Amino acid sequence: MTKSALFPKPGSEADIESGTVFTPRFDADGLVPVVTTSAKTGGVLMLAYMNDEALALTIQTGEAHYWSRSRKKLWRKGEESGNTQRVVELRTDCDQDAIWLKVEMQGIEASCHTGRRSCFYRAVPLGEVRPGTLPAMRFVESEKLFEPEAVYGHLPAAREP
Amino acid sequence: MTKSALFPKPGSEADIESGTVFTPRFDADGLVPVVTTSAKTGGVLMLAYMNDEALALTIQTGEAHYWSRSRKKLWRKGEESGNTQRVVELRTDCDQDAIWLKVEMQGIEASCHTGRRSCFYRAVPLGEVRPGTLPAMRFVESEKLFEPEAVYGHLPAAREP
Repeated sequence: MTKSALFPKPGSEADIESGTVFTPRFDADGLVPVVTTSAKTGGVLMLAYMNDEALALTIQTGEAHYWSRSRKKLWRKGEESGNTQRVVELRTDCDQDAIWLKVEMQGIEASCHTGRRSCFYRAVPLGEVRPGTLPAMRFVESEKLFEPEAVYGHLPAAREP
Repeated sequence: MTKSALFPKPGSEADIESGTVFTPRFDADGLVPVVTTSAKTGGVLMLAYMNDEALALTIQTGEAHYWSRSRKKLWRKGEESGNTQRVVELRTDCDQDAIWLKVEMQGIEASCHTGRRSCFYRAVPLGEVRPGTLPAMRFVESEKLFEPEAVYGHLPAAREP
């Protein structure tokens, strides 16, 4: 667990689980996983990470900020695409090591760098698991609401969380 | 990234993002984060982790299995409490390093080891972040649907993901 200068130090287990003081617990890399859902549809848009600075900025500005693990930098969601996320509610879980953000999208309702509403656009069929024989995934939310190259002006790979 | 003998090896970035072959990417600890939502309410129930075995068992049995980081063991959700999770849909995200499970609870509609429906039962108010001056969190889903001591017969701490 990594210490943060921005948030109070976690207390006892009872404090963490039953208290009202927000003492987020960051992992060894200083990160906490964040589930972001759409306040409009209720669906999961993305799973990303925040360091303490991204979390503090999110709380202070009401705009979702994340830590990009691939680019190793603070990332205000939508800073390039214009599709920002306004926080409707921010929750933490029982052991305060995960965050649930409910957001309203500003701009185009697309949170995925591939141009889709949600990063979770493929469903895995249930059944026998054996390499080479797994049934194909189904595209369940495949509509692209924007074209990544047009928006980012380069390959979208660097946009991954 | 950890290799898995149970799932095919991830291919090119294009394959991972646009393909239909499920090639989950496990982190250095061999885990992938999982967002579990309720098929009934749409809300986020919990954020937990799966290793490749837990993921394969989930796909094969249609019952949610996780990897308990605190207990360092495979964990069939509800194996002690009886409140199991039947998988309605399993999705992966653009870079295949996260899972979204939609589940129907069997037994009591409670996924949190504290007895609540969801682990995310507290909201963090937005505003100025300064240690010692953060506003108190609000309990937004505090009803306990079961009493942990009665169900587990011991302190519930060991039930954390």
